[in-house]
Order: sequence, then C-alpha cells, then structure tokens
Amino acid sequence: MKSSSNSVRWFVQLVSFSVVMLNSCSLTGAHTHPLDPLCPGELLLVRSILINASIMSPVDNIIATLEVEEPEKSVVKAWKPGQELPPRKALESLAKRGLNYSEIVLLPLAPGWYDVPEDEGLRLNNVQFTYANGTVNYFMRPIAGLFAVVDLDEKQVYKYIDSYSEDIPLPKREGTDYRLEAQEPPVLNPLKIISTEQPNGTSFTVNNHIVQWGSYWRFHLKLDSRAGTVISMAEVLDDGVWRSRLWHDAGEYGFGANASPLQPLNDCPRNAQYLDVVLPSASGLPLVKSNRICIFERYSGDVAWRHTETFAPGGTVLEARPKVTLVVRMVSSVGNYDYVLDWEFQTDGLIRALVGMTRIIQTSATKFTSVKNDEGNDGDSLHGILISENLVGVVHDHFLTFHLYLDIDGTKNSFVESKLKRRHIQPGSGVPRKSYWDTEKHIAQTEADARIQLSLQQPSEYFVINSEKTTRLGNPVGYRLVPGATAATLLDPEDPPQVRAAFVKNQIWVTQYHKEEKYAGGEFVYQSHGDDTLSVWSSKNRKIANEDIVLWYTVGFHHIPVQEDFPIMPTISGSFELKPANFFEDNPILKAQPNTAAEFSAYFGDVDIKVKE
Amino acid sequence: MKSSSNSVRWFVQLVSFSVVMLNSCSLTGAHTHPLDPLCPGELLLVRSILINASIMSPVDNIIATLEVEEPEKSVVKAWKPGQELPPRKALESLAKRGLNYSEIVLLPLAPGWYDVPEDEGLRLNNVQFTYANGTVNYFMRPIAGLFAVVDLDEKQVYKYIDSYSEDIPLPKREGTDYRLEAQEPPVLNPLKIISTEQPNGTSFTVNNHIVQWGSYWRFHLKLDSRAGTVISMAEVLDDGVWRSRLWHDAGEYGFGANASPLQPLNDCPRNAQYLDVVLPSASGLPLVKSNRICIFERYSGDVAWRHTETFAPGGTVLEARPKVTLVVRMVSSVGNYDYVLDWEFQTDGLIRALVGMTRIIQTSATKFTSVKNDEGNDGDSLHGILISENLVGVVHDHFLTFHLYLDIDGTKNSFVESKLKRRHIQPGSGVPRKSYWDTEKHIAQTEADARIQLSLQQPSEYFVINSEKTTRLGNPVGYRLVPGATAATLLDPEDPPQVRAAFVKNQIWVTQYHKEEKYAGGEFVYQSHGDDTLSVWSSKNRKIANEDIVLWYTVGFHHIPVQEDFPIMPTISGSFELKPANFFEDNPILKAQPNTAAEFSAYFGDVDIKVKE
Repeated sequence: MKSSSNSVRWFVQLVSFSVVMLNSCSLTGAHTHPLDPLCPGELLLVRSILINASIMSPVDNIIATLEVEEPEKSVVKAWKPGQELPPRKALESLAKRGLNYSEIVLLPLAPGWYDVPEDEGLRLNNVQFTYANGTVNYFMRPIAGLFAVVDLDEKQVYKYIDSYSEDIPLPKREGTDYRLEAQEPPVLNPLKIISTEQPNGTSFTVNNHIVQWGSYWRFHLKLDSRAGTVISMAEVLDDGVWRSRLWHDAGEYGFGANASPLQPLNDCPRNAQYLDVVLPSASGLPLVKSNRICIFERYSGDVAWRHTETFAPGGTVLEARPKVTLVVRMVSSVGNYDYVLDWEFQTDGLIRALVGMTRIIQTSATKFTSVKNDEGNDGDSLHGILISENLVGVVHDHFLTFHLYLDIDGTKNSFVESKLKRRHIQPGSGVPRKSYWDTEKHIAQTEADARIQLSLQQPSEYFVINSEKTTRLGNPVGYRLVPGATAATLLDPEDPPQVRAAFVKNQIWVTQYHKEEKYAGGEFVYQSHGDDTLSVWSSKNRKIANEDIVLWYTVGFHHIPVQEDFPIMPTISGSFELKPANFFEDNPILKAQPNTAAEFSAYFGDVDIKVKE
Repeated sequence: MKSSSNSVRWFVQLVSFSVVMLNSCSLTGAHTHPLDPLCPGELLLVRSILINASIMSPVDNIIATLEVEEPEKSVVKAWKPGQELPPRKALESLAKRGLNYSEIVLLPLAPGWYDVPEDEGLRLNNVQFTYANGTVNYFMRPIAGLFAVVDLDEKQVYKYIDSYSEDIPLPKREGTDYRLEAQEPPVLNPLKIISTEQPNGTSFTVNNHIVQWGSYWRFHLKLDSRAGTVISMAEVLDDGVWRSRLWHDAGEYGFGANASPLQPLNDCPRNAQYLDVVLPSASGLPLVKSNRICIFERYSGDVAWRHTETFAPGGTVLEARPKVTLVVRMVSSVGNYDYVLDWEFQTDGLIRALVGMTRIIQTSATKFTSVKNDEGNDGDSLHGILISENLVGVVHDHFLTFHLYLDIDGTKNSFVESKLKRRHIQPGSGVPRKSYWDTEKHIAQTEADARIQLSLQQPSEYFVINSEKTTRLGNPVGYRLVPGATAATLLDPEDPPQVRAAFVKNQIWVTQYHKEEKYAGGEFVYQSHGDDTLSVWSSKNRKIANEDIVLWYTVGFHHIPVQEDFPIMPTISGSFELKPANFFEDNPILKAQPNTAAEFSAYFGDVDIKVKE
C-alpha cells in the first residue's frame, strides 16, 4: 500500500472512519458525493488526530494542504446519487466485523524508527483501531487484527494490516465508561466534606512569573510547550540572604502543549490558585490556556520534626512542628495517559518531584474471556493481563527523565558519589565486631564518572556540590539527589526503541552544560536513530568537575496491569527528592513555630484537642 | 572491673552521675551520708534508664532489689560529715574533664551479643556519657573517651573505659537546644494558618477497637507493647460484602511501650481523633496512656483518578476524583529516636505503611572543628560527618521489619513472584523489534523460594494470592506488595549484630505461620546468638503454597548525617504499599463522586474556583 503522490490519502481514510464523532458531518450522512470536500468537523478531527499522535501540538500550524483524496476516476464515474459512497480499503475491513464506521476511533501509537532498511528515511506511525459505540472509553475496545502504518511526511497510509479472526470478538462496552453520568446506580456514598482551609489566605504570592512563599522560597515559574512546568532561579532565604539552588524542568514529553485544564476541588484543593498560561502558535500568535497550573499550600497532617524527651534535665520535653509544603502542579493529558506532575517545596529546603499517573491503559483484544481458557498457560501467554472479557492490558514501561540544571550557590558545581563501603575488621584488633561501613567520596571528573545504575546491594549517595564554597565546618555546600523507587529498562541495548531511548540506560547522568542539549532524547525523538541523545552527549566524556553541569534523573515504572485498572486506573506515583546536604549550617526550621490551639480555635471553633502527657 | 556479688553497684554509679536531673535529690545535696539509701528520684531515674535501654518497658515490674552499693568499709569510716561524698570510679574520670557530675546524662547504647568468648552468657550493655549543662539535647554533647559496659543481670559495671584525651573538648552547647523557648529571636515568621476542616465531622467511627471508615474499610485496632499499632481483621466492603484482607503489625521494636503522647495540631491535624490505650503492668494492673494513637482523614489535594479526553464521541470529557485517605498514626520515642508510624488506607483498597523518622542523631565527640583540619582526609576518616564543632554524626542504619499476616479471602494463601523477563526476538521473524519483556510467574512452594533480595536490574512483582479463589476472569484474587525505596544491610554476614539481625538479609521473606514466630529477631533479641530469628525459621524450608502464611518486609535506611540534622533532624520517610491486584473485579472507586463547588461554597464560602475548559 506504499503508494504514489496523493498527499492527503491518509487523512481521508482516517476521517472517513471517525467523522461522526464530532457530530458535524459524515461520509454516509452529510456528504453526498465521493468528491465532496472535507467538512469543518473532519478538518478538526484530522487536527485532533495529529495532536493525539504528537505529530503536532494544539498550537502548531503545520498543515499546509489538507484535501480529500480523489477516488479513481472510474469509481467516481460509476457512482450514482443515492448509492453508498465508494468503499475504501479500511471500510471493507470493518464490514466483515459488522461494525459501524462512524464509531471507529483511531489511536496513533508511538511513532519512531525501528531500523527496518526499507523504512529508512520515512516517518511512520502505527495506528490502532478502536470502537467507541456508546462509551467515551474507546481505549477499552480495541479492534483485533486491524492496524495501519502511516507515513507522516507523505500523509498517507504506508501499510495496512488486517489479520481478522472471527475468534476474537470486540471487547464489551459494559463497564468501560468512567464518567459519573454513565454509572449504574447506586454510586458510592460520598465521604463527609473535607477541605484545606486558610481563612487568612495563602502565604505565597504570584507576581507575573515570580512565586514567593513566605520567608522560605522564591522561584520563576513558566509552562514550556515541550517540558511542561519549568522552575527556574529557585532561591531560599537563609539568614536574610537569598541563595540560589536550581533550575529544572521535566523532559521532552510535550507536557506543556498537552497540559490539561485543571478542575477545581478535584484536581487541586479549594485553597489552590490557578494560573493561565500563554503558549505561542506557529504563526506567532499567543494562545491563552486557562487553569493549566495550580499552586497550593499543603498540610497533610505530617510532622516537619518532633521529639519527645523523657530524660532531659528539667522534665519532659514535647516539641513538634507541623509540615506545610508548597505544591506547583500541572497535569498533562497525552492521549490516554494523564500525568500529574508536582514540584513540592518544603520549608526545610527539600524539593520533591512527584509523578502521578492515572490513566486509561493501553489494551489489545483477545479471544479469551478467562485466564483459565488461555490454552493452559494461566495468563502468561497473553503478553499482558486479562482485565476484562476479550481485553488484555498490555505490559509497558514509563520513563520520565528530568533535566536538573542546578546552580548550588554559583554556576561551578561538581557531582559527588559517596559510596557506602563495607569494611572488615581484622581478628585480633580487640574489637568484637567483624565489620562496619563507612563512605568513600568520589568527585566525578568527567561524564563517564557519572553514569549511574542504582543498586540496593552497592549503594551510594549522590550530591551536587559547590567545591569552592564550604560551610563553617568545611563541608562543601550541596544538595543530595535522593532517588525513590524507580525502574530500569529491560530492553536489549540494540533494540531500536532502546537505541532512541538510550537515555534511560542509567538512572543518573551528569553532563557539562550545553544549551542545545536540553531534551534527553534529542530534538527529534521519534525518527531519531539515537544519534542525538543524552547517551551520545555523555560519550563525549567532557569535564564536569567544577563546571556548569546538568544532572539528569529518570523516574521509571514497569506497568503490569490488573483488573483494578479497568476501565480507568487509580493513580500510581513515583518521586525523587533534592535534599539540602550541608547547604545550611544547621536545621533551617529549628526556629519554626508550632501550631497553637488558641489560634485554631479562634478561626475554626473549639474542638476537644487536649494536649496530654 | 568485672567484679563480685554486689548487685546494685551499677545502679549507684549511674544514679550518682545523673541524680540531679530529676530535681529530687542528689548525692552531693540531699544525701548526707555515704550509706544513705536511694531516694524516690533516684529510683525513678534507675527505672528511666532501664526503660531507655529497652531493658524494661514502662509497664514492666522486673526490679527485684534495688539498693545503694555500700562503699568499702574503710572509706565509710574515714568519711566525716560535711566532707564530699566518697568519689567513685566514674567521678574521678569526670573530675579531670572539669565537668559537673550533676549534668551528666547516661545513654545506654544497643545491648547485645558480640561473640566475645569471655563475655559469653552475660547480658552486657554499653553506656555512653553525655553532658547536658544547659541544654535538653545532651545527645549533641558526648563526652569523648568515656564508656561503661554494664552487666544487666548482675546489675553492675562490667567494664569501664576511660581513654581521656585533652585534645577532644566537649562539643559546644550553643545551638543544640531545639525547644522554641530556647531559640534566640527572631524565630521564623509563621505561615498563615492552614487546617483540614470537616464541618460535618468525620466519616469514620471508633467503637471499642473497631474502626469503620465510610463504606470502604473496617478493622480492629490495638496498641501492642512490643509491636505498636496492630491492625487486624481489615475488611473492605465490596458490593455489600465485607472481604477479609490482612492482619499486620510493626516488628519488635517495643514500639507500643514507647508510644509518645501525640500533640494535637502538631503531631496530627485538627480533624484527628485521639485514642487512649491501655497497656498491662507486670502486676496485671492496667495502665492508661493518653493520646497514643490518632486517626484522621487526609485530603492532600491529590487525585484518586482522572482523565481528560479530547477525542471522545460527544465532545471533551473531564473527570477527576479527589483522593481522601484514612491515617492511623502512632509515634514511638525510643530514646533519641522518634518513629512516626502511619497506616494509610485508600478508598481504592490500597494500604500504605509509612515510617517517618525525625530524631536526634547519635553522635561522638572529636577533636576537629573543621573538616579541613581532619588530617587531610576531608572528612572520610571521621566515620561520620562533622555536623558541628567537635561533633560527629555517626553513620548508621535503620531496619524496620513488618510482620504482615495476610488473609486474602481466606487463610490459605500463596506467594507469587512474577519475574519481568527480557525476551529476544529472532532476526528474520518479520518483527522489527529486537526485544520485549513479559512476565514469568512462580508460585513459591517452600520458604526457600521466597527469600527475596530486590534488584532494579532484575525486577519482579510480588503477590500474595488466594489460589482457590479467582475473579470472574480467572485471575487469582490477590494483593501486591509494592516496595518503596529501601536499603540492604552492608555488614558481614558473620558479624555478630548481623547474625542477630539476620532477618534483614532479605527484604522479603515468607514463612508458614506459627504463632510463636512473631518477632523477626526472636523473643529475646539482644542476647540472641541468632538462633531464633526469621532467618532460622525460614531455613526450615516449610511448605508455603496454599498455606496460612506470613509475609515479612523490611523498610531500611542508611543514614549519613548532614549539618541540617543538627541539633534535631527534619523528618525523613520510607514506605511500602499493599495494593489490590485482581482482588476487585474492576476499579473499586469508579463510582466515587467528585467534589462539587456548590457543596464547598455552602460550607466554606465562595472562592473564585471557576471550572474552565
């Protein structure tokens, strides 16, 4: 099906399948002739498909020509008014499945280079076919055996695969729709109302792009089309002096362009402040998008520090300080995936990056309605998990690589790996112990010294320090990268997607700063042959000791679905921390004040909250 | 100094050093004769020391005899009224340091067996000497070179080590006190008041020991002297049927006996409910302890699930549900350590165990006031980090082993390891990929199959399933153990403390249930030779497939202090999750309702929270 010069063939194919979804026109309804042009709804749909495929963002202006493909002249001539419009290749395919064309939704899967010689030089994208027909959750209704490969440059179908098997029915619609209005009663009883309240308002201010939070933090905040929320020039007030810390953003996921409008009270708490963002269109015109960022103070009921001291001179000591944090949130809805991306700032100087994922998982259709019927393999042969009748949740990974361009009190920084080492005690030394552990610090001299694969059995701590500035005790001022639970790639290093995503080979990398090395996968990810990734930059092995450096960290997830992920998946999350490590001279919130009963009673009334001993 | 039969010698030594701390009597004050008996304050102090050393809990009744040691007859005879009381060995030691005996505080360090032949059969405990003298944070003022080893059975000093060096001064007092009243002004400006408010009250009830939360959870809650909070008989309402899940408790840390009274508004939020607990005394009398547990609902502003759908038939879909959880909290103050232990229940069936640690770190004195003066070793020779002048924060580990006695819809359960495996695709297969990954399930047949060391590079998922009950699709109903960031032991397996703590060798173990195998370190931990630990039980290699089984998981921390940990350390935390995995037929909170602006406005007034598109 790799064919000639008609540049809009693919579009017509796609549009013809799904046009009714926009309720504007259809090939079988509003259109009355094979040569009818695309209607507004079809144009919008094409645009939507391109966006969903990450071929363009909502603000791009890349569509030069967009016309319906003319059928073969002989077909047009043979057609007469009142007859069905000429079938196209895909429409034939659907007929044998007994499906209604108007309910087909096309899912562009991840495009990219796969090292197939005959495909070399082409920008191809696989398209999966799903069937909505009464649910908004068409992701749960994949049509088995039907795939198309689209040439994104030529804008035409490159390959078309139809391995129809009557054994594999369409997964059922029932139970797939997640909207409240679609639920059979009874719905769950709500919990009693709960809210975070700040009767005196918030302790943060937003002036243009500068956010300042009490006497703790100030930073510059913007939404980047590709990276999403970008925090720059973050500084902390330390004894009256603003000290610089870092600049960071989130990868190359088109996070910003796909930022979802945040729903008050559900996406963010009542005390949140919402920010509109402005992104450029391809024509240079500004596009204002509402509620793309929210900022709020969080009090989860946790403690910042505490101690109960029973043996102190003078009697029992009970000291506790509540933990309040500042959260900057955006949600990026990339097709069926919703990523909740939080930057959380603590008063003690710690910054936590959290990635929440709540989404509709990717599926494939299967003939099986029970694991036990799975040809005796008890599910292992499905390459996924049976999450509903005839529906497999496909196993997959997520890797989010963070670009952390730190400035610890200056631009000349170094990366330190502090290895935790078992030490053996020689017999006869008089010490009854046989071992202990201590640390061995290595300042990474070049990029090769800073390619880190995390290991539980051979642990290290990781720091970015300013080697030219120390605390009064001589410790270099620094921040520590504290990994959370994460995942490493399982793919063969030579597998083309892995070559393109070579940046996930290590969990940590450090590179010398170069302005153009911004996105871990390079400028053009999908058709990259892996020649412009973080891995390639690191292989230059440039000097990173006492240089302007970038720290890269990847939060990874393996996802093996379960039935609870159907039809929509509860949030899972991953995180890492940037934690001050001899950045301050001592605990920076030692002088924080506790909450007092009198103040709370004045604002919220009395409750029985006796302090007891 | 291993000596004779006088059974109270040690007590008198200890008391004489620290008696003034209780403001009740002192050897140099209230006591007027060398033969004076112990006063009430001294008795209480002895008791306190025993408690602090975990030799007894506050409710134990193990002190059979407790008298002052009689000095040598010649000394008593030579003494005359008005003269200083006869010096004891330790008092001599202190004189040369110029310290005031009344300000000495003794810290019992970890007792235990160290495989020293001459110590065999003895219960010994090391005691560190610190100097309060104007601070409640005596932990930051260790006295260099002065240690005692105490025989806990004979109740006498077994060894006394005084390696005084005039090079090592006492670490300074300034900056060590963490109480608000001890801070030099100005203190930090408080953030504006923030509270979690529930105008209609909570959605949970506590009836005797049964906690029920909305239509989501009910469980039995108690505080165990040794294990702390114990959650039993946790059940979830699933389509009107309460289904059983689990029974779990937290290790053998004497967590319960050391539970700290919780301070409202600082240890728990305003909407918390506090529970008193009753623990038995050795004589069988009940001891009521106030505010040892708090329960509260948490709304952190996070989302339980959400999705923005731009391409759905019928137009854009925006669905989001707020995440509200139920937290059961206790804080155990074990000497200088404060462990915040949370069990957090989610509406989607997930249970999260969180360990927060906020404490005063363990220290040793050093002659150094700067890392740069550390004989050129830049801190590496200190076996710790210089956190203040003359003060080293000692590197150490924390391991908290959880005993998870699960019942997934019945007592016969199995442990499944699902290994994530890279698969290679043969060239010529027509697939452009070179690899993919899938899972390979192993049902652990015996205990040897379930000794798990976590690995990022060779990942697995871990489940407890009921092999006899499946979902409608044939998936076995189960819960998944989701490890968080954790740490593995670095010690030599033959090192005596490691032999006693062999249970931290693996992060996960599964054993056949036996009532007496309750605490991972065995009944008597400190003097154990490692012959009654989880490791020993597991070595029996009993059958665990389709049996009544116990899952053990260890949350570990390596702690390398930083200056920010001085004089008191901000909270760090670790966690793991128990996550439903084909336990429900689908997402159990699909039918949850979103928050609505009307309801919030009615209770809290209007704010500008426009829902935008």
